[in-house]
Amino acid sequence: MILGKVIGSVVATQKDPSLVGKKLMLVKAIDLEDNILEPFVVAVDVVGVGVGEKVLVVNGSSARMTDETKERSIDSIIVAKVDSIQIGC
Amino acid sequence: MILGKVIGSVVATQKDPSLVGKKLMLVKAIDLEDNILEPFVVAVDVVGVGVGEKVLVVNGSSARMTDETKERSIDSIIVAKVDSIQIGC
Amino acid sequence: MILGKVIGSVVATQKDPSLVGKKLMLVKAIDLEDNILEPFVVAVDVVGVGVGEKVLVVNGSSARMTDETKERSIDSIIVAKVDSIQIGC
Amino acid sequence: MILGKVIGSVVATQKDPSLVGKKLMLVKAIDLEDNILEPFVVAVDVVGVGVGEKVLVVNGSSARMTDETKERSIDSIIVAKVDSIQIGC
Amino acid sequence: MILGKVIGSVVATQKDPSLVGKKLMLVKAIDLEDNILEPFVVAVDVVGVGVGEKVLVVNGSSARMTDETKERSIDSIIVAKVDSIQIGC
Repeated sequence: MILGKVIGSVVATQKDPSLVGKKLMLVKAIDLEDNILEPFVVAVDVVGVGVGEKVLVVNGSSARMTDETKERSIDSIIVAKVDSIQIGC
Repeated sequence: MILGKVIGSVVATQKDPSLVGKKLMLVKAIDLEDNILEPFVVAVDVVGVGVGEKVLVVNGSSARMTDETKERSIDSIIVAKVDSIQIGC
Repeated sequence: MILGKVIGSVVATQKDPSLVGKKLMLVKAIDLEDNILEPFVVAVDVVGVGVGEKVLVVNGSSARMTDETKERSIDSIIVAKVDSIQIGC
Repeated sequence: MILGKVIGSVVATQKDPSLVGKKLMLVKAIDLEDNILEPFVVAVDVVGVGVGEKVLVVNGSSARMTDETKERSIDSIIVAKVDSIQIGC
Repeated sequence: MILGKVIGSVVATQKDPSLVGKKLMLVKAIDLEDNILEPFVVAVDVVGVGVGEKVLVVNGSSARMTDETKERSIDSIIVAKVDSIQIGC
């Protein structure tokens, strides 16, 4: 999973049927000091997060392993809202 | 999903049967300010988009989860035409 | 598999059900001289490792091929604790 | 799919049985001005192309979706010979 | 497939059961002039190669398409020992 921050969302009316009703969030990668990095991805939100929140993103076929994304043409999802990060034990 | 802009198309006569009849579009990655970036991909269009349009691209096995691409040797598709991007809430 | 070092962990209460009960570890890539590199990933621990340990990380659909991660929305796991690395024969 | 140019081939006698009889081609990535870029891949040819030809390469599990590569340990194939590229509409 | 050179091996006692008995080889990417590049991967050897040999590596789900790696948490394998590389026809 990749660590990221939700920075916005995408509106798309004309799309594959498997995306209908899905929330498309813009997620930028962040480092461990919370700095926002350049790479970003559009990920389907399956947990209910908001802009500014720190999240974990799953990519690839594992993005289809939730009830909401099963067998859909989706390759990136938000699977968790991060509460805290612990460096060291 | 990756954000991109359609910049052209590819013509290929000699190809695997699973690609017959598919529209092969050239899509360049773009950033959130609409700047065209260097990386590009050839993606099958399953929603009906044109050159110059902003799109979402799905890569990997999820690219085979549409009626048009099911079980085909296709690893990249255009799944949506982007209407707008909202930064912040 | 990628060589990495466990540097911490992630706490996430609000998450996809398939992540419940999973230990989410922060793993930084390392080189063969043990230098910690910048890229990092959040991986589910399936072998029981601790912070500071050298590990192997499996990514993608193969991350779902363990009893603990089968059919879950997980794309990165720690599959082994590295005892030693032998350069040359 | 990635745009590339066939620059040579690979001979390998000792190999996994699933590769027996497959043509292993060296393909370098190219840009839209036909410049050869550094990254290259070894891809199985399923359409019959020659050195110097412009091709499309499919990577990942989709590389196993042809009759010739089904259920084989192959992660990269040449799926098409490119006739022409059209920039703009 | 990626071209690489075997430079060593990894010993790991504590690991997922699906890795038991597998030879974990360190493989560095090489270019076409045989120069060793920085990126490296830990790959399961399914063909029997030794340190110093030039090999082809398969990544992702295709790494599970051999008898020895079927349904195991393995995302990278050595599928062939390279005899020679031919540039041009």
